[in-house]
Amino acid sequence: MTPYARLEQKFAKIACLNEAAAMLSWDAAAMMPDGGAEARGEQLATLAGLAHEFLADPEIAADLEAATPQTDWQEANVGLMREAHLRATALPRDLVEASVRAARLCETIWRQARAENDFAAVRAPLGEVVALTRDSAGILGEALGMSPYDALMSQYQRGVSAAEAGAIFTRYAGFLREALPRAEALQAARPQPELPAGGPYPQDRQAALARDLAAAAGLDFSRARLDISAHPFCGGTASDIRITTRYDETDAASALMGVLHETGHALYEQNLPTAFRRQPVGEAAGMAVHESQSLIVEMQAVRGDAYLTHLARLMSAAFNKPVGLPALKTRLRHVRRSFIRVEADEMTYPAHVLLRFNLEQALLSGDLAVADLPGAWNDGLTSLLGITPPDDTQGCLQDIHWYDGAIGYFPSYTLGAMAAAQLMAAARRELPDLERHFAQGDLSPLTGWLARHVHGLGASLGFNEILENATGETLNPDYFEAHLTARYLT
Amino acid sequence: MTPYARLEQKFAKIACLNEAAAMLSWDAAAMMPDGGAEARGEQLATLAGLAHEFLADPEIAADLEAATPQTDWQEANVGLMREAHLRATALPRDLVEASVRAARLCETIWRQARAENDFAAVRAPLGEVVALTRDSAGILGEALGMSPYDALMSQYQRGVSAAEAGAIFTRYAGFLREALPRAEALQAARPQPELPAGGPYPQDRQAALARDLAAAAGLDFSRARLDISAHPFCGGTASDIRITTRYDETDAASALMGVLHETGHALYEQNLPTAFRRQPVGEAAGMAVHESQSLIVEMQAVRGDAYLTHLARLMSAAFNKPVGLPALKTRLRHVRRSFIRVEADEMTYPAHVLLRFNLEQALLSGDLAVADLPGAWNDGLTSLLGITPPDDTQGCLQDIHWYDGAIGYFPSYTLGAMAAAQLMAAARRELPDLERHFAQGDLSPLTGWLARHVHGLGASLGFNEILENATGETLNPDYFEAHLTARYLT
Repeated sequence: MTPYARLEQKFAKIACLNEAAAMLSWDAAAMMPDGGAEARGEQLATLAGLAHEFLADPEIAADLEAATPQTDWQEANVGLMREAHLRATALPRDLVEASVRAARLCETIWRQARAENDFAAVRAPLGEVVALTRDSAGILGEALGMSPYDALMSQYQRGVSAAEAGAIFTRYAGFLREALPRAEALQAARPQPELPAGGPYPQDRQAALARDLAAAAGLDFSRARLDISAHPFCGGTASDIRITTRYDETDAASALMGVLHETGHALYEQNLPTAFRRQPVGEAAGMAVHESQSLIVEMQAVRGDAYLTHLARLMSAAFNKPVGLPALKTRLRHVRRSFIRVEADEMTYPAHVLLRFNLEQALLSGDLAVADLPGAWNDGLTSLLGITPPDDTQGCLQDIHWYDGAIGYFPSYTLGAMAAAQLMAAARRELPDLERHFAQGDLSPLTGWLARHVHGLGASLGFNEILENATGETLNPDYFEAHLTARYLT
Repeated sequence: MTPYARLEQKFAKIACLNEAAAMLSWDAAAMMPDGGAEARGEQLATLAGLAHEFLADPEIAADLEAATPQTDWQEANVGLMREAHLRATALPRDLVEASVRAARLCETIWRQARAENDFAAVRAPLGEVVALTRDSAGILGEALGMSPYDALMSQYQRGVSAAEAGAIFTRYAGFLREALPRAEALQAARPQPELPAGGPYPQDRQAALARDLAAAAGLDFSRARLDISAHPFCGGTASDIRITTRYDETDAASALMGVLHETGHALYEQNLPTAFRRQPVGEAAGMAVHESQSLIVEMQAVRGDAYLTHLARLMSAAFNKPVGLPALKTRLRHVRRSFIRVEADEMTYPAHVLLRFNLEQALLSGDLAVADLPGAWNDGLTSLLGITPPDDTQGCLQDIHWYDGAIGYFPSYTLGAMAAAQLMAAARRELPDLERHFAQGDLSPLTGWLARHVHGLGASLGFNEILENATGETLNPDYFEAHLTARYLT
């Protein structure tokens, strides 16, 4: 067996362990009785420990040294293997363990601190998390030849730097300053009809409709399930996708949009290149690309007039109530300055991300002390959106990310939103009758295009390379601004 | 760390892998979309391969050599570890692989052979399975100091030999020869009222009632789920039990009895000793003991008059139909000579087991050629029950066991049925008002007694030791015969 073949075999074994863990994590969220939690934690820790042990095995280093990949894809695969092995071995064990412990403690304290609007309680634990993350980022950055922050960011999305993202986000802040008041004014001048209030929208009918919509979007239910969990997600494995949602019987739009969002993620997984299944290069390219796939479905296609017109008809029939396009637009395309990121509309969402992106870089570099975070947060949001959080629960305590040790993740959301607009523009150029299909609820021409230009590439390319390959240019925020202009400023 | 502590740690890791596999197997039967089957197979193979690799590790042998257990339980634990390590290492790798391949092929061919009543098609593959099993059994028997057949039987149930089982089963055949015609005559002389035919018994009401019955039997649903699968089973792990059933809307009794049967298995798992969780000695004692726990619930307690009277009331209310005790007795306590084991009543069931027990020993020893199996089967059933299968589909092709390589399993069913009667007799002696509780659907005094005398012992004792400990004697078929006499011959 060649060193390369041996590497493929070893990574396939690691992937099998990760697949088992993915199924058990889905089960924990969607099926498991409460009493199973402790044992599940130990099962997952065992699987993660073994996967790490196999990945860090010195034999991998030897095989990486000796491997002679024969194709571009194999070459890319070896590159990804090398980075994974390096990430698994670069950090001293005691630093890894201290980081895990610190994040676990901090997250627990954060839950209460958020509930009680008590930033002081979590200040010291967060300081510990930031300090340990700084140490890790420094070591990883050195090993990978990147800045510490880029080393963190690239573990979520390869192929786009903080400098690139920062320039684009900052430009967007300028666009928003001018566009947001205009959008608000236009919106205020229009009537705002409402959906039939309170429904009820029976859960079983929501679920049946959500399933139909996902199938019409191209989701293959012979390799997927739709279930319920407290926090919707797309889990499972490429060959057995598990998407979840939650239902509110007074508001069907929430679950329907949630399922379509997760369907975008699921299609990406279902269309990954089977020839490199269970290999690093056969996986999704990263979180920003993943988010572009959920958002091109949910935000670009589904929330456009053509699809919403169709959806209004389906909802009227499913719930036996008058649901019209204008009311759906009020519900799904309303711009509003708000404190909470996860409730933000697509125009103001990037401001929430830019705020966090700036602050987490300052925390990591030490330019911003943890103690000064609440003030910096409030100043930042005031500057970006002109509103000031009344308390830290609606400010710097709202998101789990930092308190759980995830620094470098936030930019993925907005990189994904912008990439979605750029990809949609390219798809429209090539497929001029997309809108006609959307008007029938049929996303398959779009998702087929995405399968060819994004999904099927796996992780063979990085973020900007994928965009360049699919659209002819690296990330260009013009498309996102043009999308918002067309939807909200005309 | 002491060698013993190291062993505990290693076996806990193996147990975690097995727990992950158990959850994935449950998922495959109850949740997984069809398209996930291939990937699931590879996930399970990876987990099984790792568990085997860890179990066969020479370091385990060294630690077993050096371990100094401090208590009886630790001593028993080490003994079970030693046997598990020995079973994992005794067989040459090519024999194990040939056996797995042969069984997989044979099982596939058997499915079609059974459908087409074509024993000739599966004769050669079954011959291969039997020959390879003979080789394995010889090696294992030598290593364990047992006969080859006992070495197979003891992998399913320790602590009872084929000689002991054979003597008891043969005696039972004599009892049956006399008892069965009498039971049939008594039955024929009584009116046979029927349950409301065809129902419908809506699935959701069956499920709700089944859940209530299981909870009243003591099942803790904070650590359990009830779902649907094609073949009902009790899976999952001790801390997160997953029982399944299937529903027939024309016949509620089938699912209700099925759930109560699996509840008996589930209670055993839920009450295993937590101090030895994830250790061999903390697991269930074997398949015969397990079957005794499902049957003491389903056959001994539930199918008795007291519980059935209560159940008739609950069913009448749940399905809004007149369900009376006499009709339930017709449905659930009817004796009938039949060809199919899984449809047999509790009186004739042991005849089906004795037939297989005799034949599989003869196949293993070589006294019976595979080619002669159909004839031997038909002669055997004719001798035991006085009926002759019209074809092999209803004869020697009906069960998957042999074709899948499972020789030595069948006796567990009847050892379990007999043990259940013996345990029930002992429980009745200690708890005179059991019937009063059964009449209210409350099995908790019985299951509490079982938790103390069976469940909580884990695998610290073998089959006959458990019975001796709980009832004062090793397996004594008198109790089973007395139970049948009371139920069917008076």
